[in-house]
Amino acid sequence: MTALTVTVWNEFVHEREEPEVQAIYPKGIHSVIADALQARLGGAVHLRSATLDQPEHGLSEEVLETTDVLIWWSHIAQEQVADEVVERVHDRVLRGMGMIALHSATKSKIFRKLMGTSCCVRWRREKDREFVWTIKPDHPIAAGLPEVFSIPQQEMFCEFFDVPDPDELVFISSFPGGEVLRSGLCYRRGYGRVFYFSPGDQDFPVYHHPLVQQVLANAVQWARPAAGVRTDPYLSRNSPTGWLDAVPHGVAGK
Amino acid sequence: MTALTVTVWNEFVHEREEPEVQAIYPKGIHSVIADALQARLGGAVHLRSATLDQPEHGLSEEVLETTDVLIWWSHIAQEQVADEVVERVHDRVLRGMGMIALHSATKSKIFRKLMGTSCCVRWRREKDREFVWTIKPDHPIAAGLPEVFSIPQQEMFCEFFDVPDPDELVFISSFPGGEVLRSGLCYRRGYGRVFYFSPGDQDFPVYHHPLVQQVLANAVQWARPAAGVRTDPYLSRNSPTGWLDAVPHGVAGK
Amino acid sequence: MTALTVTVWNEFVHEREEPEVQAIYPKGIHSVIADALQARLGGAVHLRSATLDQPEHGLSEEVLETTDVLIWWSHIAQEQVADEVVERVHDRVLRGMGMIALHSATKSKIFRKLMGTSCCVRWRREKDREFVWTIKPDHPIAAGLPEVFSIPQQEMFCEFFDVPDPDELVFISSFPGGEVLRSGLCYRRGYGRVFYFSPGDQDFPVYHHPLVQQVLANAVQWARPAAGVRTDPYLSRNSPTGWLDAVPHGVAGK
Amino acid sequence: MTALTVTVWNEFVHEREEPEVQAIYPKGIHSVIADALQARLGGAVHLRSATLDQPEHGLSEEVLETTDVLIWWSHIAQEQVADEVVERVHDRVLRGMGMIALHSATKSKIFRKLMGTSCCVRWRREKDREFVWTIKPDHPIAAGLPEVFSIPQQEMFCEFFDVPDPDELVFISSFPGGEVLRSGLCYRRGYGRVFYFSPGDQDFPVYHHPLVQQVLANAVQWARPAAGVRTDPYLSRNSPTGWLDAVPHGVAGK
Repeated sequence: MTALTVTVWNEFVHEREEPEVQAIYPKGIHSVIADALQARLGGAVHLRSATLDQPEHGLSEEVLETTDVLIWWSHIAQEQVADEVVERVHDRVLRGMGMIALHSATKSKIFRKLMGTSCCVRWRREKDREFVWTIKPDHPIAAGLPEVFSIPQQEMFCEFFDVPDPDELVFISSFPGGEVLRSGLCYRRGYGRVFYFSPGDQDFPVYHHPLVQQVLANAVQWARPAAGVRTDPYLSRNSPTGWLDAVPHGVAGK
Repeated sequence: MTALTVTVWNEFVHEREEPEVQAIYPKGIHSVIADALQARLGGAVHLRSATLDQPEHGLSEEVLETTDVLIWWSHIAQEQVADEVVERVHDRVLRGMGMIALHSATKSKIFRKLMGTSCCVRWRREKDREFVWTIKPDHPIAAGLPEVFSIPQQEMFCEFFDVPDPDELVFISSFPGGEVLRSGLCYRRGYGRVFYFSPGDQDFPVYHHPLVQQVLANAVQWARPAAGVRTDPYLSRNSPTGWLDAVPHGVAGK
Repeated sequence: MTALTVTVWNEFVHEREEPEVQAIYPKGIHSVIADALQARLGGAVHLRSATLDQPEHGLSEEVLETTDVLIWWSHIAQEQVADEVVERVHDRVLRGMGMIALHSATKSKIFRKLMGTSCCVRWRREKDREFVWTIKPDHPIAAGLPEVFSIPQQEMFCEFFDVPDPDELVFISSFPGGEVLRSGLCYRRGYGRVFYFSPGDQDFPVYHHPLVQQVLANAVQWARPAAGVRTDPYLSRNSPTGWLDAVPHGVAGK
Repeated sequence: MTALTVTVWNEFVHEREEPEVQAIYPKGIHSVIADALQARLGGAVHLRSATLDQPEHGLSEEVLETTDVLIWWSHIAQEQVADEVVERVHDRVLRGMGMIALHSATKSKIFRKLMGTSCCVRWRREKDREFVWTIKPDHPIAAGLPEVFSIPQQEMFCEFFDVPDPDELVFISSFPGGEVLRSGLCYRRGYGRVFYFSPGDQDFPVYHHPLVQQVLANAVQWARPAAGVRTDPYLSRNSPTGWLDAVPHGVAGK
């Protein structure tokens, strides 16, 4: 199996402007995620990163065409992402690229475009402990995870979380105030797979947590483009009478 | 619209053997539920109850054939329910009768037969507060409910809850230890609808809670047999070539 | 129960430009649909229509705020719909308005925005017969429908149909070439409900078919805004520690 | 990765009693399936077969405990399968064994027990051509499959198919009469995965079809027990206050 190319995208703003965040993520959230994936998946992945301040936000057509799975972290600069880049990422997901949206990426243009909803949540930034419960123990993204694990300090996100019903609900989180959140959600969009995972505020060392890293490593493998899936752009295709009759074994449509 | 006939089934054991339970439910859990539904739904429903100690547990063929929605509460006497009655209820659900399974009915023969799984949960009987969160605000069973409400004292039930993924996840509950449970679940089985709702231990006055009563009243209306659904028993039907051609407007299959 | 206000939107282009279409729908597709709904639902509905050529396409803020269910037919003029109106309709769906998208509305801006995918299908315009199969007989949109019915002449639409997995798959259609389509699909987006129904080309008298009309009448009732659902715009709400403790019965969030 | 142990179970009655069936499957349907899987998956699988006439139908506790994926074909002898063996298979699925049910296994005791419904279909034995459409192109079971393929002769199975809504709908089939069937369906039950695939009558050489074999090879890999899933029997576990606090990293529940 050839190595998956994973691109970790980060707006990379908090880490350069806030000393407390810099102390946790001196080279940026993307670097911690990329290093963790490399350490856990080794030769199975080829890691790259891209950030908001690069030309085309580092997401040129060439980069996207050679990306198997895109990881996305954004928060304070959601509106600075160019619409043209959003369209390009969206198109690439529909043609098979996997996408993993993290934490405040709920409000990113690309995640809202993929979901079709507002993606609003309730929230609180008060150092709450988060418990993450595995609801689908057989799911590939839950591989190696316990029934439940805790993250000592986190921003609280809770329901009502305005997303479509997920194709698969993998994790539910709880917080000390009694709040709950559907926190690990799988979707298919076109030929691509999308996973949303809520843990991950910039103010806490969440991406240093070994089990959060395990979830991300699992998700990268789950979101890989399916073998054999057509990768040309979508088209509404005219299919005249008899189109199914002319093919060997009745096989059509590749 | 003709009134729905609702049969409330209760094993009715705790209330006769334990003074503390009797203090909360002197005439049985079924009476509190039946009275609440009557008060809330008025002429829209006709209420009956049935208990384990009656002949055929009060669920004769005649009773079931005239029941639109069956509510089921059981706990300590699950294994005393006759297999023949279980088969009869199951068959009736497949032909359109709605069913609402409450609390420990997770482990009833009929609920496990409808689910195909063990229906195990984690549990704790320690007077925990339960928060019930509405995850699908547009769902008929959530009508009139707030985003979240609390039940002051409850037996804790939590994940992993071994049920099939629900068709609709209406409620998620949390408990003070950080536990979570998918607590309001909708399923279709055959032509019938099934709703599981976890609140309701015998040791606490849960069925006196106005919002729990509201959920039950909503669920009875949601689970009503669909208008126009065929109610004869299922059959695997031979459908020879041409069976679809001989009918007016191409309409077949009533 | 107060009457539902239903707005039938139609681009209304084919009927004015093509004599064959005009012969089938002299006053426009919207008029046939509106008349059918009025005849079937009587006082339960208040019907209005709106078309592309009106100011704001007939979908001013006032019209949308007072619309309970919006029916949408579009085909040849999809790109002429103003983005601003699309945003307005989308926002209104998230706040509870039901939406029924018909036939080629697959490629409308609003449907693609709600789905997050390309919504492409295979197609053929050759007077094919369509069989519509009921897959969920208990579903409100299937009320009164047979197991299967036929539409004598239709444009063929078939898989792969690039939409998210539906929350509920109500109908599957087949065509003489052996093609299949998921043709009746339910989704929730925000607080609103969305139903897609594929029958309905302008070249055939599909909306005069009594069972197609029955589906539309059922869908209008199913898509009505839920009782008790909050209708203010969405917000990501800060929910500080203790927000759940200060309320009577623990009830919060209205 | 260690080889998966796959047990192919066949009632093995038609092939010994009917010359026409024997001509197609001289060593039994199970042999053709086992050979095909071996040829396609090589060292990744270890194949075994078991039949109705063996002691315990060849499904002793030892056989099941060492089976990763069980394939099941049954038709004329469904009622001869001992209830004790059905219970044993069911229990093993809940603890993680994958199961693939084929064709008339709809009416097997084990499939009905896993589904909770009657599993009835309409049917016709008249040498109909079947088209199999891929509805979820990204699904592992569809890997390498075209958009649609045909099986020249098949028993017709069509809707209404009385099963729960699947977790994933992978294939839809059509037949010359215009009939449709949800023909490739995925379910989770406990920690185990279940796949139903309808092609496969004994009267036609369906399991010799290369693309049917491809589906089975894909399904075996998809249904493998998840890495890291607990394999002890289910228990309802008492979880007293504080059970989540005493563990390193908050990790609990293995």
